[in-house]
Amino acid sequence: MRCEIVAVGTELLLGQIVDTNSSWLGEQLTTVGVDSHFQTKVGDNHQRIVSVLRQALDRSDAVLVTGGLGPTQDDITREAIAAVLGVDLVTDEAIAATIATRFAARSRPMPANNLRQAQVPVGCTAVTDPFPGTAPGLVCPVGDKVIYAVPGVPSEMRTIVGAVVLPDLARRAGNRGAIVSRTLRTWGESESGIAEKLAGRIDELDDTGAATIAFLASGIEGIKVRITAKADTIEAAQALLDAEEALARAVIGDHVFGVDDDTMESVVVALLRERDLTLATAESVTGGLISARITNVVGVSPVFRGGIVSYATDVKYDLLDLPAGPVVTAEAAELMALGARRVLDADVGLGITGVAGPSEQENMPVGTVFVGLAVGESVTVDQLRLPGTRSQVRDYATISALDMLRRRLLAS
Amino acid sequence: MRCEIVAVGTELLLGQIVDTNSSWLGEQLTTVGVDSHFQTKVGDNHQRIVSVLRQALDRSDAVLVTGGLGPTQDDITREAIAAVLGVDLVTDEAIAATIATRFAARSRPMPANNLRQAQVPVGCTAVTDPFPGTAPGLVCPVGDKVIYAVPGVPSEMRTIVGAVVLPDLARRAGNRGAIVSRTLRTWGESESGIAEKLAGRIDELDDTGAATIAFLASGIEGIKVRITAKADTIEAAQALLDAEEALARAVIGDHVFGVDDDTMESVVVALLRERDLTLATAESVTGGLISARITNVVGVSPVFRGGIVSYATDVKYDLLDLPAGPVVTAEAAELMALGARRVLDADVGLGITGVAGPSEQENMPVGTVFVGLAVGESVTVDQLRLPGTRSQVRDYATISALDMLRRRLLAS
Repeated sequence: MRCEIVAVGTELLLGQIVDTNSSWLGEQLTTVGVDSHFQTKVGDNHQRIVSVLRQALDRSDAVLVTGGLGPTQDDITREAIAAVLGVDLVTDEAIAATIATRFAARSRPMPANNLRQAQVPVGCTAVTDPFPGTAPGLVCPVGDKVIYAVPGVPSEMRTIVGAVVLPDLARRAGNRGAIVSRTLRTWGESESGIAEKLAGRIDELDDTGAATIAFLASGIEGIKVRITAKADTIEAAQALLDAEEALARAVIGDHVFGVDDDTMESVVVALLRERDLTLATAESVTGGLISARITNVVGVSPVFRGGIVSYATDVKYDLLDLPAGPVVTAEAAELMALGARRVLDADVGLGITGVAGPSEQENMPVGTVFVGLAVGESVTVDQLRLPGTRSQVRDYATISALDMLRRRLLAS
Repeated sequence: MRCEIVAVGTELLLGQIVDTNSSWLGEQLTTVGVDSHFQTKVGDNHQRIVSVLRQALDRSDAVLVTGGLGPTQDDITREAIAAVLGVDLVTDEAIAATIATRFAARSRPMPANNLRQAQVPVGCTAVTDPFPGTAPGLVCPVGDKVIYAVPGVPSEMRTIVGAVVLPDLARRAGNRGAIVSRTLRTWGESESGIAEKLAGRIDELDDTGAATIAFLASGIEGIKVRITAKADTIEAAQALLDAEEALARAVIGDHVFGVDDDTMESVVVALLRERDLTLATAESVTGGLISARITNVVGVSPVFRGGIVSYATDVKYDLLDLPAGPVVTAEAAELMALGARRVLDADVGLGITGVAGPSEQENMPVGTVFVGLAVGESVTVDQLRLPGTRSQVRDYATISALDMLRRRLLAS
């Protein structure tokens, strides 16, 4: 079963918007066992959209089009699909009424263009839920093949694909029963290292076919391990998934920091909440990146006291009470952790100092980072040597420090 | 003149990597007046790469392939191009020698695979500068058309495209003389607002053809206005560009914050340096995002003292000396700016408080933000009402505050 992806929009070709939809869709298709051999970007041009759709339908079993479903004259995906199918567009009166009602509710006059969104090629089904009247999606059967059209707005696209397109594709792919998947988020181990640890189990699964394990490198955010299980019922698939997760966790160990939508910072905040501990930070090399990530977590207020970005050296001396002297040292990181905890009246202190570059500092090479953690009576310091540009060193230092804090909280 | 882009790599189809190369290339092609009607992603499969290249060559004047030039068995772009051209691959002895020398210099044995990178389809020219021996690019004339192959690694891709591909495309497009372009970075005005202001000049340029003006919406980072000028000599093109920039700046005004690679934070840091002023921040709603952006600028040390992330309310009272009471107020932002400046011993203080959501706070709705600036004797506060999710409110608040600081520094 093959599904080809077509992203419509001149702004994509001009580089004004990066086409992240196709990447997300490619990842989703793998979860229902559907291959995607080609992904094409095409501009808002009727003839070219038609030619791309015809070719995609010719060489694949399904075509998923994103974009071009809005109300303006540039939005011509509906017309292109009608041309490929050789059918007319008809107005779906229910959708038209919903659109009119929406404008009336806001006491705004409705530009006639907006009714374009109520047009549906004959033989296609409009997907109006969960976005009544707004750029609905289309499901268009073509013989034993199918064209899906979904909005280009990522949030709307994701909802309709999850609710309508993936289940329909799974059914067409002959996936009887249920497919469930879960992603383990890991940090601190390379993709090849994790793959080696799971190689035996992956070989066994290749024989039984009950589940699959895939790796997705996510740059500085670590390696994702996605487990997908199939069974006759959702309960049975879920049980398989739980069992595989347990096996995977047993070999990957505490490199697993979370599942699915967890982030390193959301996990740290959850651990602080569970343990009823408050946190304070003192950052130099990361300049506020750690507190910025922590404070993006909803519900962080009860556990995060605040942070001090002690960028100038004498701020470290004056505000955090470091003794005069070098500041890219293990001792400085330790005193910064203790200073943050004391000045901001927290249970846990995190201090971080280092050299982001481009030049060395205090004769320490670029990429040298010290992370201090003060938890209860215990104060620990770790030294890192991180690769990359200034920006990469700062990002690596940030997630490394958060991971150290996670491990210390788990052990406390 | 049309150039089609083909991105090769199974990891692109699976969504493990987002194809940002094609977007960047699409943007670059517009600077030399070349259209790109189709952009295709295809996996590491010989037959499918060949079919995509054949079709692209058929319907466009030039094809630009990225990726698949590395040393592994998965890297088969060279073979696919040879198949399209109907020619053999031959080893370029100079490149082979360079590769061997590189391994010898590191005293490492060279896997035989690495010599694959020295293979060149007959009739193609290997582009070895400025990356001797590493995944060189290829220029392959096909009748009056051409296939370019460049590495998938963005930094290498960009260098070769800028040095070799764009000049060759410009020459083929009949661009006699020189083309130069410059991007004005703007913030605080909508794309339609800027387009309206420049509409008259764009109409005039449509007639003369000496220069073009294009808009690129860059989300939270504002609207980019790219001016491109053509003339017989580089000096004449540069003079045209300077004249157009002056005209554009005259109508867009101080919404222009920088040019080309400038960022809002790099401009703020440059203004502080010029004025010999130091900065300190006190952040609540943005939680360190402002100091994190400021400290990513190379050379920030002399002007940035540090910041206080006063997340918990009583940290604002204790450390910044705010009186007990509400903290999402204009007065709080003002006192935070003054407190940051005093505690961190800086010339300029920036204080920011607000409600990022998801829930309201102190009866203030989500998106309410106050920014206080203390510069010299003057203290000002601005109130914002920002849209979006928690994360968007924080990002908007960050760049808004940096822009306010920029304007205050310009006026001081």
